[in-house]
Amino acid sequence: MRFEHKDILDIEALSVQDITMILDTAEGMKGISKRAVKKVPTLRGKTIILLFQEPSTRTRSSFDIAAKRLSADSISLSKSTSSIVKGETLIDTARTLEAMNPDVIVIRHPSSGAPHLIAKHVNASVINAGDGIHGHPTQALLDLMTVREKKGSLSGLNISIVGDISHSRVARSNITGFTMMGAKVTVAAPATMIPKGVESLGCRIAPDMDSCVENADVIMMLRIQKERQENILFPTEREYATLYGLNDRRLKLAAGDAIVMHPGPLNRGVEITNEVANGANAVILDQVTNGVALRMALFYLVAGGSRNVDTV
Amino acid sequence: MRFEHKDILDIEALSVQDITMILDTAEGMKGISKRAVKKVPTLRGKTIILLFQEPSTRTRSSFDIAAKRLSADSISLSKSTSSIVKGETLIDTARTLEAMNPDVIVIRHPSSGAPHLIAKHVNASVINAGDGIHGHPTQALLDLMTVREKKGSLSGLNISIVGDISHSRVARSNITGFTMMGAKVTVAAPATMIPKGVESLGCRIAPDMDSCVENADVIMMLRIQKERQENILFPTEREYATLYGLNDRRLKLAAGDAIVMHPGPLNRGVEITNEVANGANAVILDQVTNGVALRMALFYLVAGGSRNVDTV
Amino acid sequence: MRFEHKDILDIEALSVQDITMILDTAEGMKGISKRAVKKVPTLRGKTIILLFQEPSTRTRSSFDIAAKRLSADSISLSKSTSSIVKGETLIDTARTLEAMNPDVIVIRHPSSGAPHLIAKHVNASVINAGDGIHGHPTQALLDLMTVREKKGSLSGLNISIVGDISHSRVARSNITGFTMMGAKVTVAAPATMIPKGVESLGCRIAPDMDSCVENADVIMMLRIQKERQENILFPTEREYATLYGLNDRRLKLAAGDAIVMHPGPLNRGVEITNEVANGANAVILDQVTNGVALRMALFYLVAGGSRNVDTV
Repeated sequence: MRFEHKDILDIEALSVQDITMILDTAEGMKGISKRAVKKVPTLRGKTIILLFQEPSTRTRSSFDIAAKRLSADSISLSKSTSSIVKGETLIDTARTLEAMNPDVIVIRHPSSGAPHLIAKHVNASVINAGDGIHGHPTQALLDLMTVREKKGSLSGLNISIVGDISHSRVARSNITGFTMMGAKVTVAAPATMIPKGVESLGCRIAPDMDSCVENADVIMMLRIQKERQENILFPTEREYATLYGLNDRRLKLAAGDAIVMHPGPLNRGVEITNEVANGANAVILDQVTNGVALRMALFYLVAGGSRNVDTV
Repeated sequence: MRFEHKDILDIEALSVQDITMILDTAEGMKGISKRAVKKVPTLRGKTIILLFQEPSTRTRSSFDIAAKRLSADSISLSKSTSSIVKGETLIDTARTLEAMNPDVIVIRHPSSGAPHLIAKHVNASVINAGDGIHGHPTQALLDLMTVREKKGSLSGLNISIVGDISHSRVARSNITGFTMMGAKVTVAAPATMIPKGVESLGCRIAPDMDSCVENADVIMMLRIQKERQENILFPTEREYATLYGLNDRRLKLAAGDAIVMHPGPLNRGVEITNEVANGANAVILDQVTNGVALRMALFYLVAGGSRNVDTV
Repeated sequence: MRFEHKDILDIEALSVQDITMILDTAEGMKGISKRAVKKVPTLRGKTIILLFQEPSTRTRSSFDIAAKRLSADSISLSKSTSSIVKGETLIDTARTLEAMNPDVIVIRHPSSGAPHLIAKHVNASVINAGDGIHGHPTQALLDLMTVREKKGSLSGLNISIVGDISHSRVARSNITGFTMMGAKVTVAAPATMIPKGVESLGCRIAPDMDSCVENADVIMMLRIQKERQENILFPTEREYATLYGLNDRRLKLAAGDAIVMHPGPLNRGVEITNEVANGANAVILDQVTNGVALRMALFYLVAGGSRNVDTV
């Protein structure tokens, strides 16, 4: 089987077979980061551009480390150092970068659809590292990887996703991904944070958090993204924590071996208590570890794997 | 023949033979960026410092990619992360960097002459990546490379350069370079944007844009650099576009096979229309591609080429 | 003998034997930066994260170059590009980075104790690159290295340290380090810049600068750190220069072969005159050169040396 996608823009664009292939490849990559010499020559001589137009620690570092562990050259362009301040259009920026013959362009951008626009105009592979409130497919894939690793399979699991569904690209991509892989997704949030028609993604809306997490195999908490909310969507952080925060009492409503996930960065004491974040059920750091392996797998599949073997 | 220059500070400091050697070397480098493995070990173990004191996407990335494709180590210092905020003098910054034993220091600086000052105080090779309104020799060299590639030779060509000659380091370096190589340069711009005595660089001033581009083999449009103009030098962008913008009608006045160049980033609809920028005559992205090859050539010639082979 | 420390957090945590081992290793590393190919494969496949939460040119570059010359992969995270703006706690940032399997985390942070906090929560080695007004052990070590190199040994030397002792992490680490190695340290500064109880570090307080530098073998001038002073601690820069600046007259009070040190960046004309800074006694650039070698030695000892040879 070959991986046929030039770009990773959306979880929706992938088939169940694609996702399985990606997760299998990522599992194989995971061992590399545990060796004394954490580096393989697989992508030597490939150029990967990291174009991050929003601040990021974990996602950018994860891509950067993934590139370097495969021996690719990575070039970081951030908003503060780039000529985007000069008013160049996004397409011109992309075409300019393309003219330097990169193999992959990873982009995070505040506008939904920016990576798709770029992908249409370049021959390089484009990987969406988060676009506006639209999607964050690599986060969804690393979450699928983490759940599959902990639970053996995805099919039939009860997944609870709690928090600001409206403003979360992580939520959208994850609801889609888990549903595709045969899991049942239930969401809970204040009414102001549930987008109209979210059920069309395949999920169920719970009336409150307690009923959302009941018997859950996986509880995924979303970050309250203060920086994305134009209006205040809930009265106080304290009230939010009371109604929609994950604490020990609520965790007990879930399955005994439920795992607790969070894409980070954490607002401790708001959407999740310290006890739960540090507790035995949390797999938050496994998500980060898997993120590196997952991104190594994507780089390999789009830039060095079977897709390219035939064309080079 | 050997390349005898420690530094690349100005196009004026190079001879016709030097420029030919640089362009020939760059042509040879171009193929590396088209391979599946875009990397050669030529500068392994060399240290290249990129000191950019102005925002830049394309130039910094171009140098960074050039360094990595030659296997050099590149270290980026930008204004936002450096201690230049602490008030250190430029010479002390340079001497400090020098003490870390770099082979090449690439510098972009808002003050004209800054690279020259640094070059006097360090043993490392210094490459000027743009200094104030003074010069941008690597841009001129990649432009010469692009024209030679498209036209076979530079001698006898009619080159039109249109736009803010006064505030453009690109214009100064290009007028000098094209003239040295035997081309005839004509410039056009609003009177407020033509520096006194520009003819001494070897160019002719056209009375208006139409007569400037007539029979041109090459039309080089300059970016309106809003960020450099202390006063408003023209009434409106719309009037500027009417009088000095390149559109299809004006392009027809030039030779049938004329090429259209722009150093980027583009102000579409101001100095150049979308139609022309995207049209068959435009070689704007070739300039970017050649930029990487040209900078690989310069790194090779100053840090790894015949110059150093004898001294190491 | 083996190097037993996971982290380099404080000069106080090292023994005389440790320091000697570090300086000996650094001396051996120094030659690498003078070769034509300035790179050894020692740390290939190791990941080093540079987390700089304060602006820095020399220290960050020094660590970055040191990592690359040992063939390690280095990942830079600066305040302007990181998600620390999102309000994540320092421990969560550290744990997140740790989950990506780095070998070393180098941290500079405005809060005293930040590197120690991180070191407790990660398995990776942590190197303190300056924390608040607390310490800067790698600076102290490179200063010890420079003095030992110039003077043959440290024992019995008269060391004068002049300037803002209160706000200088460099001063604290150096007083401790020189005293440990058997040198005698005397300090001088305006009364507002001498912290209470500084003698407990093992130094003597001189009544004025002249008596401080008399017969000194080493004069270390501290930078007036305007950005750290909440209140104005001295009337004018001119008065400061008169009372506590190093000039030719004062240098003559010291031993004939005294060396002059400064951690940089220099405030020329304030704490040191141009004449002295550029003079034959100054070893300021040797400090920078030794900084790269010293940091290579630390990377080697914590991530690739005898400590890890047994455990991998």
